[in-house]
Amino acid sequence: MARPKEFDRDEALDRALDVFWTKGFDATSVQDLVEATGVQRQSLYDTFGDKGSLYLAALDRYSERSEEWARALERPAESPLTVLRQTFIQIAHDASTGSRGCLLVHAAQERAGAEPAVRDCVQAGIQRLERAFTTLVKHAQAAGEISSQIDARGAARTLVTLLWGFRAMTRGRAGEAWLRSVVDSVVGLLSTETS
Amino acid sequence: MARPKEFDRDEALDRALDVFWTKGFDATSVQDLVEATGVQRQSLYDTFGDKGSLYLAALDRYSERSEEWARALERPAESPLTVLRQTFIQIAHDASTGSRGCLLVHAAQERAGAEPAVRDCVQAGIQRLERAFTTLVKHAQAAGEISSQIDARGAARTLVTLLWGFRAMTRGRAGEAWLRSVVDSVVGLLSTETS
Repeated sequence: MARPKEFDRDEALDRALDVFWTKGFDATSVQDLVEATGVQRQSLYDTFGDKGSLYLAALDRYSERSEEWARALERPAESPLTVLRQTFIQIAHDASTGSRGCLLVHAAQERAGAEPAVRDCVQAGIQRLERAFTTLVKHAQAAGEISSQIDARGAARTLVTLLWGFRAMTRGRAGEAWLRSVVDSVVGLLSTETS
Repeated sequence: MARPKEFDRDEALDRALDVFWTKGFDATSVQDLVEATGVQRQSLYDTFGDKGSLYLAALDRYSERSEEWARALERPAESPLTVLRQTFIQIAHDASTGSRGCLLVHAAQERAGAEPAVRDCVQAGIQRLERAFTTLVKHAQAAGEISSQIDARGAARTLVTLLWGFRAMTRGRAGEAWLRSVVDSVVGLLSTETS
């Protein structure tokens, strides 16, 4: 007799997240999710609802992870402008080495038009990132690294858009050197040293 | 007796492009293409090959249209910085009013990983746009609107990335005011007047 629901919910969710992130929503079958999680189809349905609900739960999980990342940006351990530069260098590296990109960017592309709950999740992610970058820019302004003339929120929104651009370009295979020159350009435009 | 191939190739291609642009590659069936073009299935195959080949032909067609747009950027009729601002205001407007976004961005997302010819087409589009923005930035520098200290190519690549970000955000439904504040920020960062 099958024993339903004997599985770790968070672990199953992490594995489902992994599949959705790699394959996208449409290309992921329920069978893929059964195989990746090792959980029976009926138990998956009982716990998470249908594929759409599981996808939403996976997006929430992804947002939790992003939250840690955003919080680290708000408490830079070294020069805020250096943290900003390093953050974008890392994103440029990920985007050019076949990383899977950002799940929220994929979700916006694939599901936000059809599914309001996905759109809400994507928008919350954008707002969270905007707050983190605004705080980081203000830290850099306090440190004299970015001119206080610059509107911190506008600069933060520009950084969010660039991050989305980098992530959207992941699958366009823009080269790392190309993306690095964008990082240099933006940091140069923001920095008091080069203006 | 059916009369194959009695159709305008370019017109059929425009209609196929329209379907791919709206629905994406995966969600477009051959039947959708037959209905949109009014061309029989076998005639479509005879003229364009399979769905993947027709998609590539549609991408080429889209690139031809983008070429006119890029050329206009290189010959600004008024202040280059104003043309730059207006261009991004238009993109922000399109991105926030449910436009279909950029076919190349969708293609990169959906097909560039699987199909080298799609990747080549996307990369050619990126390079073309970079050349256009580089020329426009240099015009603005010659007009004294952007500091000559700024690396024109780096700035152009930043603009390409922002354009990708805007277009990727189309389906995330970032509001127009939000995107406009990015335009203001970037034009402010580039402009000699506000630096």
